[in-house]
Amino acid sequence: MAKETQFVEQIADIEKDFPQWYTDVVIKTKLVDYGPVKGTMVIRPYGYAIWENIQKELDARFKKEGVENAYFPLLIPMSFFTKEAEHVEGFAPEVAVVTVAGGEKLAEPLAIRPTSETIIGTMCSKWIQSYRDLPLKINQWCNVMRWEKTTRPFLRTSEFLWQEGHTVHTTAEEAEASTMTMLGVYKEFAENCLAIPVITGRKTEKERFAGAVATYGMEAMMHDGKSLQAGTSHYLGQNFASAFEIKFLDKDGALKTAYTSSWGVSTRLIGAIIMTHGDSRGLVLPPVVAPVQCVIVPIAARKGGVLEACAKLKGELEAAGIRVVLDDSDNSPGWKFNEWEMKGVPVRIELGPRDIEAGKMLCARRDTLEKEEYPLDSAVSAVEGLLARVQKDMLEAARARRDSRIVYAENMDEILRGVETGNFVKAGWCGCRECEDKVKEVAAATARVYAEGETAEKCAVCGKKAEHVIIFARAY
Amino acid sequence: MAKETQFVEQIADIEKDFPQWYTDVVIKTKLVDYGPVKGTMVIRPYGYAIWENIQKELDARFKKEGVENAYFPLLIPMSFFTKEAEHVEGFAPEVAVVTVAGGEKLAEPLAIRPTSETIIGTMCSKWIQSYRDLPLKINQWCNVMRWEKTTRPFLRTSEFLWQEGHTVHTTAEEAEASTMTMLGVYKEFAENCLAIPVITGRKTEKERFAGAVATYGMEAMMHDGKSLQAGTSHYLGQNFASAFEIKFLDKDGALKTAYTSSWGVSTRLIGAIIMTHGDSRGLVLPPVVAPVQCVIVPIAARKGGVLEACAKLKGELEAAGIRVVLDDSDNSPGWKFNEWEMKGVPVRIELGPRDIEAGKMLCARRDTLEKEEYPLDSAVSAVEGLLARVQKDMLEAARARRDSRIVYAENMDEILRGVETGNFVKAGWCGCRECEDKVKEVAAATARVYAEGETAEKCAVCGKKAEHVIIFARAY
Repeated sequence: MAKETQFVEQIADIEKDFPQWYTDVVIKTKLVDYGPVKGTMVIRPYGYAIWENIQKELDARFKKEGVENAYFPLLIPMSFFTKEAEHVEGFAPEVAVVTVAGGEKLAEPLAIRPTSETIIGTMCSKWIQSYRDLPLKINQWCNVMRWEKTTRPFLRTSEFLWQEGHTVHTTAEEAEASTMTMLGVYKEFAENCLAIPVITGRKTEKERFAGAVATYGMEAMMHDGKSLQAGTSHYLGQNFASAFEIKFLDKDGALKTAYTSSWGVSTRLIGAIIMTHGDSRGLVLPPVVAPVQCVIVPIAARKGGVLEACAKLKGELEAAGIRVVLDDSDNSPGWKFNEWEMKGVPVRIELGPRDIEAGKMLCARRDTLEKEEYPLDSAVSAVEGLLARVQKDMLEAARARRDSRIVYAENMDEILRGVETGNFVKAGWCGCRECEDKVKEVAAATARVYAEGETAEKCAVCGKKAEHVIIFARAY
Repeated sequence: MAKETQFVEQIADIEKDFPQWYTDVVIKTKLVDYGPVKGTMVIRPYGYAIWENIQKELDARFKKEGVENAYFPLLIPMSFFTKEAEHVEGFAPEVAVVTVAGGEKLAEPLAIRPTSETIIGTMCSKWIQSYRDLPLKINQWCNVMRWEKTTRPFLRTSEFLWQEGHTVHTTAEEAEASTMTMLGVYKEFAENCLAIPVITGRKTEKERFAGAVATYGMEAMMHDGKSLQAGTSHYLGQNFASAFEIKFLDKDGALKTAYTSSWGVSTRLIGAIIMTHGDSRGLVLPPVVAPVQCVIVPIAARKGGVLEACAKLKGELEAAGIRVVLDDSDNSPGWKFNEWEMKGVPVRIELGPRDIEAGKMLCARRDTLEKEEYPLDSAVSAVEGLLARVQKDMLEAARARRDSRIVYAENMDEILRGVETGNFVKAGWCGCRECEDKVKEVAAATARVYAEGETAEKCAVCGKKAEHVIIFARAY
C-alpha cells in the first residue's frame, strides 16, 4: 500500500490547486508534453487517440449534414487579411509570419493561418458562379497558429489542431439556419460523446468573432466553476462574401452576393474533458472517446490459468469492438489500479484464480468507483452495458454539478460573489458595453452567452432597464 | 453526340501531351486547384476524399504494426537542423522560415517542418530512459513544407500532406528490420489498394535521404514510362540518435545510443494513381480508394418509375457499404457518361424503362469500358463482384504495361534510348558516383533503386566490373 499512497501524491490536490492538478494530470498521464518552442505542445499517443475518436464522431456528423472535407494552404498572403477590416484587427496581432523561404526574402510576407475565412473566401469566389453551385459546405481538419502570450496545453497554445467548417448560401436565412444547425451538432456531440453538458447561445458584440455578424458559442462548466468556450458557430452575413467577392447568378438572372457561415472546435475539447470529469485520482474519460475503454488486471497472475483466462477475455471483448488492454506488466495490482485510474479508463476488470473458478469477474467503474461482479460467460454484454451506463451517468453527474452552480444576481456584488465562488451567474443586462466592461473589471468575469428566453427587470450593473439576461462567468 | 465530342476535347491528348493531359484532368475533375501563393495547392473535396481513403487504409496497417499516432509542432528551431550535418545541408535550402510572430521579431528563426526527425528526436531523447521504453513506434499525419522552384499539383508543391513514421530501437538489426517491414507495408498497400505495381529497393548514396544510412524507395511507372518515387523508408542508424542524444539504459546496465528509422508517403500518391491508370477519357480510379465507386445514370429519367427504381437501387448499394451516387441532374445521359468517365468512377450503371421491365441493369466498367447486363435483384453482389474484378484487373494491367517496358542496357547509348522511349532501364553499374552522374547528364535519368538479386558483368557507363544492377529511369 506504500506504493499506492506514493502514486496518488504525485498529483496535486484537485480542490486546493486546480491549475497544478491540471498540469500534473496532462503530463503524468502522457496526454501531452511541452514542445521546444515556447507555447507549443506535443500531443502524445494517449492524447492523440482521444482526438482521433473526437474526429471520427464529428466527421460522421458533418458528412451527414452534407459537408465535404477539403484542404486549403497553410500560408495566406498578409494582404488577404486586410480585405475584411474587423478581421485583420482581430487576428493580425497574433499572426506568425513567414518572411524567408527557399533561401530568399519573400516579396510579400505570408501568414500562417490563424483561421481560413480569407483563403477559403478567395477560392469560393472562383468556384461559385451560379445558384446551382450553392449551398457549398466545406470542412477542413488542420493545424492553425495564434501567437499567444500565456499558454497551457490543450487550452491555449500557439499551434493547435481543429476543424473549421465554411458554408456559402444564397440567402441570409439559409446561412443563419446552417449556423444554428452546426451549433446543434456540436451540442449533441458534446453531450452524447464527451458527456459534457453545454449551454449554447449568442455571444455579445464584444465577444464575437472578428468579422462575424453573430457568434454563437457553447460553454461548459469546468471543475472550478469557470467556463470554457468549447466551440463556436459564426453567421458571417455578407462580410466576407463582399470582401472576397463571392457572387452568384441567381435564378432571376441577377448577380448577387452570397452569405457565409463558419464553425469550429479544436483540441481544446480535450482540456474540456479533463476539467469537466477529472477527480482527485486523475482523469475520468467518457467511454465514447476513451482510448482504452476497459483494462484487465490479473490478480495473482503467476497462478496457472490466470493470464490465459485474461487473454481469452481480452480477445472476446476486442472481437466485440471494445478498446481493451490487458496489463500483464510486472507491477503489483495495487499499482496498476492507481495507474489506470489516473489514466481515466472507464472500466477495470479484476480477474484472479477464485473469480475464474467461480466463473465471475469483478468490474470497477472509474466514474463512481463502484465495484460489481458479473458472470464471465456474458462478459461482452456486461462490459457493453457498463460502458453505456458510465457514459450516461457521467453526463448526468456533470449536468447536476453544473446546474447546482448557476445562480442569479441582482447587482454587481452578487455577480462578484457568484463568480468568486465558482458559479455561472445569470444577470440582467441593459445591453451597453460599459456595463459589460465593468463586470470584467470588477469581477474578472465575461459575458459568456445570452441566456435565451430569459428576462430580467433591471441591469445588474447600472440598474437601468434590462434588455437581456446574460450568463457571466470567469473563463479559460 | 455534339456535346460528347465537345466534352472529350476539353482534355489534352494523353499520348501527344501528357503533362497538359495531367493538368487538364486534375483541374477539370476538381481534384485540386492552385492556391493563391505560388507553388501551393488546394485539395478539393473530390481529391481529398481519395486522401481520406488512403489514410484509412494505411492507418489501419500502421496500427496493426503497433504504431501509434501523435502530433508534433509545426515550427522547429533552426538550430535543431544543424545538429545533423548532412540533414541541414539537405533541407536548409528549401525551408520556409518564420521570423516574426505576435508582432515581434523572434530571437531565433523557426523553420516550418520539412520533415520532423529533429523535433521528434528531441522529444524521444526526453521520453526514452530504458530498454523497456523501446521499441517506440510513432506516426503523424500532417502538413510539411519544402520550398520548391518548379511545382505541379500533387507531384511537387511547397506544402503537401503526408504521414511520417518514426521508430526507435535498441539494436541496428531491429531498426533495419522495421525499415524493411514498413517498406513492405507500403508495397502491399500500393498494389492492393491503389492497384499500382511498385519496385522496391535500396537507393544509391546520391539519392538517399539527407541524414540516413540507407534509403529504400518504391518506384512506380507512370503512363509516359517515367518513374515516380511513391514512398520511402529510411534506416537512420545512430545518426539522429547521436545528434539528439536518444540514449537508453540497456538490460546489462550500460547506457547506449538507440537506432532509428523513418518512413513516409504523401499526397503525391494521388498523382501516382492519376498517372498510372488514367486514359484518353480522364481518370480511372481503383475502387478501394475511389470517392465514388458506382454511379447510377437513369435512362429516359422522365418516364414513370425510372427515378424511383434508381433511388431504390442506390439505397440497396449504399446499405451494402458501396459508395454510390445517383446522377439525377438535368444533363443528357451521354453528357453524364462522359462526366463520370472523366471522373474515373469504376462502375457505371445505366437503368432505363426497358431494363426495369426486364429486371436488369447495364453495368459499364471504367477500366476496360466493357458493358454487361446483370439481374437487378442481385445488384449488390453484382456490383461488389465487379468492383473486386476492376481492382484486380487494374493492377494486372498496370503490371503488364510496366513489365513490357523494362529493358536491359549494355552501354550508355542503350540507356539513353531506353529512357527516351519510356522504359525503366536495368544496367550494370560499377558503383562510382561519376558513372551515376554521367547517366544523369547524358540521359537525364537517375538511379531509381538497386535491382535486388540481379547481377551484370560490366558497368554500362565505364565498362569496368559491375558491382550492382541499377534501375535507371527519368523521374518525376
